[in-house]
Amino acid sequence: MQNFDYQTPTRLIFGEGVVAQLPEVMSQFGKKILLTYGGGSIKKIGLYDKVKELLADYEIFELSGIQPNPKYDPSVLEGVRICKENDIDVILAVGGGSVLDCSKAIATGAKYDGDPWDLITYKAAATDAVPIVDIITLAATGSEYDPGGVISRTETNDKIGYVDPHNYPRVSFLDPTYTFTVSKKQTAAGCADAMNHIIEQYFCADSTLLNDGFMEAGLKSLMINAVKCLENPEDYTARAEMMLTCTYGCNGIYALGSSYSGWPCHGIEHALSAYYDITHGEGLAIITPRWMKHILSDKTVDRFVKYGVNVFGIDENQDKFDIANQAIKATYRFFESINIPMHLRDVGIDDSRIGEMAHHIAVNEGLEEAWAPLLESDLVEILTASL
Amino acid sequence: MQNFDYQTPTRLIFGEGVVAQLPEVMSQFGKKILLTYGGGSIKKIGLYDKVKELLADYEIFELSGIQPNPKYDPSVLEGVRICKENDIDVILAVGGGSVLDCSKAIATGAKYDGDPWDLITYKAAATDAVPIVDIITLAATGSEYDPGGVISRTETNDKIGYVDPHNYPRVSFLDPTYTFTVSKKQTAAGCADAMNHIIEQYFCADSTLLNDGFMEAGLKSLMINAVKCLENPEDYTARAEMMLTCTYGCNGIYALGSSYSGWPCHGIEHALSAYYDITHGEGLAIITPRWMKHILSDKTVDRFVKYGVNVFGIDENQDKFDIANQAIKATYRFFESINIPMHLRDVGIDDSRIGEMAHHIAVNEGLEEAWAPLLESDLVEILTASL
Repeated sequence: MQNFDYQTPTRLIFGEGVVAQLPEVMSQFGKKILLTYGGGSIKKIGLYDKVKELLADYEIFELSGIQPNPKYDPSVLEGVRICKENDIDVILAVGGGSVLDCSKAIATGAKYDGDPWDLITYKAAATDAVPIVDIITLAATGSEYDPGGVISRTETNDKIGYVDPHNYPRVSFLDPTYTFTVSKKQTAAGCADAMNHIIEQYFCADSTLLNDGFMEAGLKSLMINAVKCLENPEDYTARAEMMLTCTYGCNGIYALGSSYSGWPCHGIEHALSAYYDITHGEGLAIITPRWMKHILSDKTVDRFVKYGVNVFGIDENQDKFDIANQAIKATYRFFESINIPMHLRDVGIDDSRIGEMAHHIAVNEGLEEAWAPLLESDLVEILTASL
Repeated sequence: MQNFDYQTPTRLIFGEGVVAQLPEVMSQFGKKILLTYGGGSIKKIGLYDKVKELLADYEIFELSGIQPNPKYDPSVLEGVRICKENDIDVILAVGGGSVLDCSKAIATGAKYDGDPWDLITYKAAATDAVPIVDIITLAATGSEYDPGGVISRTETNDKIGYVDPHNYPRVSFLDPTYTFTVSKKQTAAGCADAMNHIIEQYFCADSTLLNDGFMEAGLKSLMINAVKCLENPEDYTARAEMMLTCTYGCNGIYALGSSYSGWPCHGIEHALSAYYDITHGEGLAIITPRWMKHILSDKTVDRFVKYGVNVFGIDENQDKFDIANQAIKATYRFFESINIPMHLRDVGIDDSRIGEMAHHIAVNEGLEEAWAPLLESDLVEILTASL
């Protein structure tokens, strides 16, 4: 078991109607709020009006139009400008993981004198951040319970995972009813994203009985509940279980004491969405089974057997590699069953930039240090198999 | 799924050698430390000297002799006095759950003008606390990751669970090597305590797939690793897995969104150790299977089936009550197999005060509101069956 240093100070307020506590929660931070959101879905579901009504006594500035795969320019830069010019006390992010990720980069950027890109690229270390509160409207990234975000810079094809402990949200409101209107496409992509978060941590050299059972339960919960949500988008219990399971995705709790895995599928997918701006969860679903097939070996097979037996209920009295291959196939088929496009060509990616992306990943993602090391040639093979 | 409000801000620093970080961690709190510990086991294992050496630059006051089932008088009162007289900046609790529980009552008591018993009995609410750091030397209570403690007052036979959010430890150091010398008796009792923490949360009206899988993995991890620890007390991985699993016991994470269970076995056991000062984990192991048998009914049987199938691997193709009874027997036999005395008479308790204890529990523990409600007559039956 590996040593670890773990702390997740975020307060989770979970359940139907909990947003009513917003005024009381916000009162501890000050009067000037930067409200951040995306394309307007929070207006359609009435959440925008609700927030404005609840916070009528506050001075609210707004940053809207934050996109999926949130952009450094204009979103982060604009948010930092608003915070600095208006001496913002607290950021209230309302939306999915992208809105929250963007808000995190704003939070530290607003307390930094130089170019916020220095922080995102770790050229400088943040010393402070504007506090963040969020109301999450999509079960997927787990950003509501971790200190990280992913920021894209279009002109350089960079999509960078930016983690800073200053950026744990202070309070995250999770009301599953706000996910009732999430489309089937985004529900499925969110499920794939959350499943991949677990898979990235499950496949490593050394885990614990507790972590493995926790993660296996998480994977089963996501698959069972995603199907229920797709069948009946207003199934409260299914939406709630999805939401809670997603929450643990990236704060490290699934892997306390485990060996580092390298998060290879995220490393690969970040290039896909940086170059082509595809839906993150769909990119992960496409890559995951191809990556699994590529790394299956004498060294890795036992983890696949455990995964196959405990997550998919595959009969353990078979050849190890047979079990592993069935597990990989079951992973693929599950994603397919929830109507995720399972080929890169289905999401508009052809073979023309595979070499370029593989090189970008090899240079930037450190995957030669992953549990199952990936060199540039491996990346080309995985991407080609995903076409 | 139930609404919840959850936050565990404690930082966990886990692994062999992590105590070396103590000076850096303590430096954020100030120079005056109250070092609390128990009967001297920390001196035998060299930890006391190590702490003193690491903190040579600090002014250290000491409160030693904190007993299992820690006592309000003298330990809490004496600790509060030392804190107040010396303007203590931080409490460093070194030992097992009892030392830490006692330190929590001291922490809030030291910032309260009246009698600390007012806080413990919720007659007054704490508004502040001396920060607490701990080095835990026993895998059992989970006090290192929760805001609660249990304090006994001998003259009134009170043993009260005292929970206050001010009392989350700021930092908990968990080095599994400090548990190598824990006796077989205490290793087994710690396992039973931690197993019961999970069982108390597992048996409720409504849980989630995720919680159930997490708890089932916790129970299996505790049983497998306790046996390893008893066979080889210096098995690092087994001690480490025990330690991590125990940590989650009482901070609520195993039951996020679950219905309230009532924690009935703890309610009963608190009377046993208040009246007879027995080892808490042993009392729980004795009570648990008798409580299970008592509450088994048409209403509860399905949870027992899930428990039996998923924790003990009992064949699910049998009559529900048969599975439940096998699961209860397996629970009993596991405790027996790790040499826990499984009758009250084995720990010095006869039938002379059963009526009195049952009445005390019925009046103080609110178990008529538990998932499987317990009236005074039920308590008499469970205690009598445990003799």
